[in-house]
Amino acid sequence: MSLRVDGKRLLRDLAELAEIGRDPGGGLSRTSFTPADAQARAWYAAKCEEAGLTLELDALGNMVAGLPGRHDEPAVWSGSHLDTVPHGGAFDGALGAVAALECVRRLAESGPQLTRPVRAVVFSDEEGNYNHLLGSTAMRRGFSEEELAAMTGRDGDRLVDALDGWPWARGSRTDTRVDPARLHAFAELHIEQGPTLEQQGIRIGVVTSIIGLSGGLVRFHGRADHAGTTPMDARSDALLAAAQFIGAMPGLARASGPASVITTGRVRVQPGGTNQVPELAEVSLDFRDPSRERVAAMLEAIGRSAQEAAAAHGVRAEWHPDEIVDPVPLDEGMRALIADCAADLGLSSIDIASGAGHDSQNMALLTPTAMIFVPSRDGRSHVPVEYTTDEDVVAGADVLLATLRRLADT
Amino acid sequence: MSLRVDGKRLLRDLAELAEIGRDPGGGLSRTSFTPADAQARAWYAAKCEEAGLTLELDALGNMVAGLPGRHDEPAVWSGSHLDTVPHGGAFDGALGAVAALECVRRLAESGPQLTRPVRAVVFSDEEGNYNHLLGSTAMRRGFSEEELAAMTGRDGDRLVDALDGWPWARGSRTDTRVDPARLHAFAELHIEQGPTLEQQGIRIGVVTSIIGLSGGLVRFHGRADHAGTTPMDARSDALLAAAQFIGAMPGLARASGPASVITTGRVRVQPGGTNQVPELAEVSLDFRDPSRERVAAMLEAIGRSAQEAAAAHGVRAEWHPDEIVDPVPLDEGMRALIADCAADLGLSSIDIASGAGHDSQNMALLTPTAMIFVPSRDGRSHVPVEYTTDEDVVAGADVLLATLRRLADT
Repeated sequence: MSLRVDGKRLLRDLAELAEIGRDPGGGLSRTSFTPADAQARAWYAAKCEEAGLTLELDALGNMVAGLPGRHDEPAVWSGSHLDTVPHGGAFDGALGAVAALECVRRLAESGPQLTRPVRAVVFSDEEGNYNHLLGSTAMRRGFSEEELAAMTGRDGDRLVDALDGWPWARGSRTDTRVDPARLHAFAELHIEQGPTLEQQGIRIGVVTSIIGLSGGLVRFHGRADHAGTTPMDARSDALLAAAQFIGAMPGLARASGPASVITTGRVRVQPGGTNQVPELAEVSLDFRDPSRERVAAMLEAIGRSAQEAAAAHGVRAEWHPDEIVDPVPLDEGMRALIADCAADLGLSSIDIASGAGHDSQNMALLTPTAMIFVPSRDGRSHVPVEYTTDEDVVAGADVLLATLRRLADT
Repeated sequence: MSLRVDGKRLLRDLAELAEIGRDPGGGLSRTSFTPADAQARAWYAAKCEEAGLTLELDALGNMVAGLPGRHDEPAVWSGSHLDTVPHGGAFDGALGAVAALECVRRLAESGPQLTRPVRAVVFSDEEGNYNHLLGSTAMRRGFSEEELAAMTGRDGDRLVDALDGWPWARGSRTDTRVDPARLHAFAELHIEQGPTLEQQGIRIGVVTSIIGLSGGLVRFHGRADHAGTTPMDARSDALLAAAQFIGAMPGLARASGPASVITTGRVRVQPGGTNQVPELAEVSLDFRDPSRERVAAMLEAIGRSAQEAAAAHGVRAEWHPDEIVDPVPLDEGMRALIADCAADLGLSSIDIASGAGHDSQNMALLTPTAMIFVPSRDGRSHVPVEYTTDEDVVAGADVLLATLRRLADT
C-alpha cells in the first residue's frame, strides 16, 4: 500500500492557519507583509522546527524548508503561498503551502532516505499586495533596486518601506535568483478556483497550462478645485476620465477574445475630499488570456484607451504596465506521472487549464513543473466562502505526496 | 480714527496655524478629528488662554471663546473653522477663525466695554471629513444617536469611534443645539474661493446669499470573484456600475441648470485587491445650486441614475442622500452695515453670491447673519496654492472688527 499523508494533521494545520488574519466578519485578510502575514510565517516556522526541518529565507520573504544535513542538490520542490487577497478565503495558497510541508514531514518520518531531497517552499506576495507573483519572480529573474523602489500597495505605501524591519527576510534584495541547478522538479497543489471539477464530479485536475497575464496602473492627472465654486465646464476632473476608462474595459476584453478578462479591482482618488474635484485617479489593471499575443495586444489597447479617456476630459494619463507573465505549458512527463499517481490512489482525474496565475508559472521557466488541482465549491475563490472538502484536501495531498516521492526516487 | 486689528499679530497667528498639519509636499491636511486637528485646537486654546478668554466646548467639538465674567446674552458671534480638506490650503476657514479671535482680543484690550459681548467660535468638521457643516448643523438642530452612528470617513471609519477619547469635546452628543436667545447676530470672514473680487479689483465682497447644497453616498453592491477564473459575462462588478454612474453626473448637472454642479470626490472599492472583481463601490456626492428646487431635483435624479447604472451591470444600488442645506439669503441690515464699515475704512466693496457652503448657512437660521469675502488669488481654493495677500487679510479683519463693534454697541 502506498504512503499517505497524515490527513488529520494536515487538516488541523489548515484549520490553525485559517485563524490567522481572520476578519471580524468572516474571511481572511492575510495580505503580504502585514502583521497577519508575519504571524502566519511564525506559525509555519514553528511547524518546521517541530518537524526538525531547517528554514532558509531570502530578502524578499521567500522561505524554503528542508531536512538538515541533506543539502545535496538538485532537489524536488513543492509549495505555494501563505498570503491572501483582502477578505479572501482559507484555501488559495494555504492548501499548497501546508500540503508541501506535510509531504516533507511525512517523507522524513517514513524513511528510507530517497535519492533526492524534497523541499517545501513558501513564495511571498503571490497575490500582489505589492507585486503579483513577487516571490517566484524574484526566484526566477530577480528585481533591480529601481523596480523594487517603484512597487506600492493599495494605499500608495512602498514595498521597500514594508520590508524595512520585516523579520522574515534575510540577505540582498537584488540577489534572490535560484540557480536552476538546485532544482530537479517543482509541483504545486492548489484549489481549482473554477467550477469544472465539481461540475464533472472529478477528484483531481492535472493542469495542462497556466494563463498568460499582465497588469499595471493607469494614473489620470487632473486639477483639484473647489466643488462648490468651480463650474462644470472649468474642471479637469481626473475621476471622470477614470470612469470612462473603467467603463471601456469589458468591451476591450470581449474584443480581444472569448477567454480574455480585464479587471479593475482598485481605485485611488486624491485629494479624496467629498467637496474637492479629483486631481488624481489611479486605476489598477489585471488582464489575462491563454495567448501571449492577445495579452500583449490588450496591454497596448489599454494604453490607447487611457489616452482617449484623458483627452475626452482634458486631463493627462500615464500607463505603467507590468511585465507580461507568459502563458506556460506544464511538463508533459510530470502530468503523466500525476495522472498515474491519482489512478493508483483510485482517484479520477482530467486535464484542465488554469485561468488563474500561479507561482508555478515562474518555476516552469526554471525546472520541469506541474500543478495538481482539487475541486472548489461553486468555483468561488478570493472570497470568504472559498471552500474545498476535507476529503478533497487529503486526496490532493496524497497525490502530491506520491508524485514527489516518485520524482525524488527516480 | 476707527479701531483696527493688530495686523502683525493676526498674520503671525495665521502663519503659525499654517504649520499645523502641513504635508511634506506642501499644502495642509488638517482634516477633522485627526491629530493635526487636535494640535490646531490646542494652539487655539493656548491663544485664548494667553488673551484671558474662556473656552466653551460641546460634545461634537464646537468651541466658543469669550471674555470671562461677561456672560450676559444675547452676544455677537463670529468665527469659522480650523479643519481643512486633505491637501488643502491655509486660508479657507483659518482666516475667519483667527480673525474672529483677533477681534475679540482687540475689543477686550481696547475698552471701554460694549453693550453686548462678542464671542469667537470654531465650528467642527466644516469640510465634511465625516459630515459637511457638522458643527454648525449640530448647533442649529442637533443630531440623533442614529445619525451620528451612521457618519463615516473616507476609510469607512466611524465618527463616533473618532470622537471616543477626543480631548476637544465635552457633554452630550445629542444635546448641542444653541438657544437662539444666546445670539444677537453672527458674522463670518472668509476667502472668496472664486475669481470675481480679484478680477474686478475690489477689496471686500458683501455676501448676498449662500448656495443650496446636498450630498450623500451611493453604494453599489456586486459580487467579489477571482479576476482570472471568472469570465466577463459571469461577473457582477460593482465598480463598472459606479463608473457608468460617475460618468453620468456632468450631464445631469448640465441638465439641471447653468449654476448647478455635481462632484464625485471620493470612491471606495472593496475588497480592493488588484486581482479581485469589486464587490462594493461607494461613491460620494456633493451637489449644489442657488435654488432649493433644483437641489431637490438633482437629489432625485442622482438616485434614478444610480438605479439605472446598477440595473445595467446586474448589481444593486443604495442611495443615501444627506439632508438638503437650503440656500439662504443673508441679513439685509448686516449687509448694509458691512458695506458702510468697508467704506469708512476706504475699501471698495460689491455684493457677491457664495457658491461654497459655509457654517453661516446654519447660523442664518438661528440669528441675523452676514459674510465678508476677501479676494482669492486666481480663485483657487481647497488646494495648496490657495492664497490671499497680507493686505487683504488685514483689510477683511478690519471690516469684521468694525462690523462686530457696531453690532455690539447698538
